[in-house]
This record gives sequence, structure tokens and C-alpha cells, in this order.
Amino acid sequence: MTPHEPAPDRGGLVRVRLDLGYDGTGFAGWAVQPGLRTVQAVLEEALGLVLRLVPAPSLTVAGRTDAGVHARGQVCHVDLPAPTWEALPGRSDRPPGESLVHRLAGVVPRDVRVRAAGVAPAGFDARFSAISRRYAYRVSDAPWGVDPLRRLDVLDHRRALDAGAMNAAASGLLGEHDFVAYCRPRPGASTVRSLQELGWTRQSDGLLVASVVADAFCHHLVRALVGALIAVGEGRRPVEWPAQVLQARRRDGAVTVAPPHGLTLEEVAYPPDAELGERARVARRGRGDVA
Amino acid sequence: MTPHEPAPDRGGLVRVRLDLGYDGTGFAGWAVQPGLRTVQAVLEEALGLVLRLVPAPSLTVAGRTDAGVHARGQVCHVDLPAPTWEALPGRSDRPPGESLVHRLAGVVPRDVRVRAAGVAPAGFDARFSAISRRYAYRVSDAPWGVDPLRRLDVLDHRRALDAGAMNAAASGLLGEHDFVAYCRPRPGASTVRSLQELGWTRQSDGLLVASVVADAFCHHLVRALVGALIAVGEGRRPVEWPAQVLQARRRDGAVTVAPPHGLTLEEVAYPPDAELGERARVARRGRGDVA
Repeated sequence: MTPHEPAPDRGGLVRVRLDLGYDGTGFAGWAVQPGLRTVQAVLEEALGLVLRLVPAPSLTVAGRTDAGVHARGQVCHVDLPAPTWEALPGRSDRPPGESLVHRLAGVVPRDVRVRAAGVAPAGFDARFSAISRRYAYRVSDAPWGVDPLRRLDVLDHRRALDAGAMNAAASGLLGEHDFVAYCRPRPGASTVRSLQELGWTRQSDGLLVASVVADAFCHHLVRALVGALIAVGEGRRPVEWPAQVLQARRRDGAVTVAPPHGLTLEEVAYPPDAELGERARVARRGRGDVA
Repeated sequence: MTPHEPAPDRGGLVRVRLDLGYDGTGFAGWAVQPGLRTVQAVLEEALGLVLRLVPAPSLTVAGRTDAGVHARGQVCHVDLPAPTWEALPGRSDRPPGESLVHRLAGVVPRDVRVRAAGVAPAGFDARFSAISRRYAYRVSDAPWGVDPLRRLDVLDHRRALDAGAMNAAASGLLGEHDFVAYCRPRPGASTVRSLQELGWTRQSDGLLVASVVADAFCHHLVRALVGALIAVGEGRRPVEWPAQVLQARRRDGAVTVAPPHGLTLEEVAYPPDAELGERARVARRGRGDVA
């Protein structure tokens, strides 16, 4: 079974949903790559270890993050042999999910944390059942830089940004569009996406935070949108420019892809349990590249 | 001039106040120690470099933090030759303080940031004029651990804590007391302190944060108080125990000093400008060990 396909027949298998977060600094992204430290590889190895499964089980993830990108609300699923799941509590009185979280906390390095584990509802697929993903992009535009305790996940920009201009520009990008101008193309993958939210807020600590929600994101989309909006916020480009780039429907070399470490996957949303299977069928049919 | 003495005669010198923050992870504390990386040494070296002063100028700090302790609202002062200060803008149109912040941002490593610099009001002494220091201590008691993006400054406790019990215990510690039971003694240093605030709040992200305010802190005081309150929060000790330890007025081996990395100096408060000099005189007279 590849991570792109659901379990065709789950006889004897329990589908488990894992909720997790990670600091992307020390990872070459989510997906397994030979010879590189990735979140998927670290987590699959840890699952193999605590569950004594050889080979280690494979994970399917909601949002395949790039190198250096963080997650706080990442979701993935894994199909486990039912006896393995049921044996998890051992001599403890913890339910299997709590037991798995506890065991993983002792084995997984500190830059990855599994917050919750439990049997997924029928029809659940971490990737294809998701109805939307929410990312945050954090920027400090203070001339002195970034609070040292936040430097892992905040971009150090140092030039003042006009949040009002950035939000005005963002409003021209909302809705369903072909975002090919802002995507790194992948063969066979659609670049039509529905951008539901894109707004900047100035927090009380001075940070500028973009909240970006879409049904799914093509490769580099959030970081390219953020790069275009930062150009507006600095006054280097007019407010209309990001929407003009979108409408031109071709890659524009003037759009800078913002650095990965300002980006965090904050949340993945799923429909009510009864709609999970139908949502997965629609998503699989409509999009070659949902993540 | 030692860092413990005010400039006796500031003829030709300008006293500059610096506001700064640091991630204490990579430092052996604030104070210069031969052969060790300390915040004071890094910052004095950077000031010597950008101001071309040999020897580098000496800093006087409000709160001398221990190894591994962080700061967000640290304050220090430095006495600079007036011509050096006035030459700071160079060919820019920035005022000297902004120019210094800008230059330091380019030279100081990312785990230290100077947020502001400016001429201090008459009578100002970063250490002796301060009327209070506020620290925060951050704990995650979630069984899964700490959000990886907050692991620099949050204690990973993993056992549930009862914030109500901790606050009930804390109320018995407020006010002016001899905190010798909670201090690592230093020769000639008073252990009488006025604890103005000590309260735990459960944040929306689940973190438990203690806010601790006192006129000044003796060595290890915040971390020993936090250690005693965590024992109450876990149910290992009764609510009355921390006050009993205080009243016994001797070191109690049962008090565990909490780890440094949960602790951050958040704020230093000063009186109105007209009272700065008088405050410094009183503080110098009353306390051998103010920090």
C-alpha cells in the first residue's frame, strides 16, 4: 500500500489517526527521502520500535510540508494490525491511544510530538478526507529583529510592513482560481485551488501573522503568496500587483517564495464523520495532488 | 569603574539604556566568566566592535540571569564617550539610538537581540534604580510533552498539575519575608525580599505560566518557589507546605529548584524619572545583592 491509496481491505487492521506537531528546522520536510532526516521517517521508525512491527508501518499525512516548514496541527493516519493496537495498554489502565502517545513521547526526539492517537472514524483518510488546511506565516518587521525565543518560526524581515496594504492586496486573491502563477508545477497535478482566507493580523507582541486557509495547497503556494504580499507591504509593488500575477496564469520571476521557517501548518479540518468517505472519494477524483 | 558602582563623574560620558532579550540556551548566564559564552561578554564584544572602543565598554544589568535562563525584557546600561555616541548616525538620518540598534542587529548573534537604545534619564542605573522585576515560568503538563516550537522556554513536565492548588499555596508566600529557605546564599547578601505577585494561569494553548514579581530576587529564588509549587500541583505536598518551608527559615532539601529553561525575565520596572536617583541610593544602601 502506498501512502497515496487507502487501505483496500482493512480486514484485521485498525486505522489510527495521529495528531502531531514538529519544529521543521532539523528536517528535510515531511516525506521520506533516502539519506535525509524527515518527519515521516522519524515517526515511522518510532512506531515500528514501540509497536515492534517489522517493517515499520507507513503513514499517510494531511499536509506534506517542505524542508524547514513547521506544523502544530498536522494529522496523519496509519493502519495497524488489530492485535497490536489492542495490546498497547500492556499492564497499564490507559486506553490504547493514550498508551501510544505516552510511549512515543519517550522515544521520538523533542522536535516532533504526537499529541493524540485514536481509532479513526469509518471512511477517514488523513489526506483525502480533509476539507481544508490552515497555515500561519509569521513575520517580524521590527528593525531590531526577532525575539530570540521565537526565531525558530518567525521570519526576520527588519523593514516595516503595511498590514493594511497587504490585506487589500490579499482580498484580490480569495476564491477559486487557477493558482499556477504561484505554484511550483508537478506533473499531473491540478493548480486550481479554493483560497478561503488570507489575512494579516498585527499581534500585541508586534508580530505580523498571516492566516491562510484553502481546500488544499499546491507546492510553494503559501510561501509564494506571502512573498508577493510582502513586496506590497514594503511598498515595492502596488496593491493590485498580486491579483495581476494571478490573472496572468504563468509563473512570474518577480514573485519571491518566502523562506520556509516562517510557515507553520496550524490546523487540518475534516467534515462530520458521516461525510468522511464521500469527501475522500470526491477529493481523490478531482485532484491529482491534494496536500 | 566596576559594574556595581555608578559612574562617579560622568563628565564626557553618556549613559545609555539598552533593552534586550535573549535565548539563554547557549549561554552560561549573563555575567562574564572566563572561557565561557555569556550574554554580557557577547554584547560587550559587539559594542566594542561597532563603536570601535578598546577596551570594550562594561555593561551593568538589571537582572543577572543564570545559565539557561532567558530574557525578553532585560535592561542594562553602558557609559559611552559622548563623541562616540554622537558619531553613531554616520551618514544616515537615524538618531544615535536607532543607529546603534541597527548596527548591533547586524553583528550580535540571533540568540541575543537589542530592541532599543537611548540616552538614560538623569540618575538612572539599570540595576539599582529598578523597583521590580517580573519573571515568567512556563510549564507544559500535557502527557504528550511540549509544542516543539516552544521547547526552548517551556518545561516538559508531563504530569498533570492543579493550578488552583498551586495558587492557593502561592498566596501564603506573598509579601515581605526572609526567603532564606528558598535562596542559595551569597556572602553579605540579604535574603529579605518583597514578593508582590506569584500566580499561575492556564493559557488557551494549555501551558501553565507563573508570573512572579518582586522588588528583587536572591539567587535561585524563582526556580525554588516554582519547584515547591509544582510539588503541590502534583499532589506530592499539601497546599500549606511552601509557606511552612518559608517560615522555617532554613534550606529544605525537599525543595527542588526547577530547571532554568522554563524561566524568562519578562520585565524590569523603574520609577518616574524624578525618583530614579533616590531609588538607586535606597537600593544600594539596603541590599548587598540586588538583581
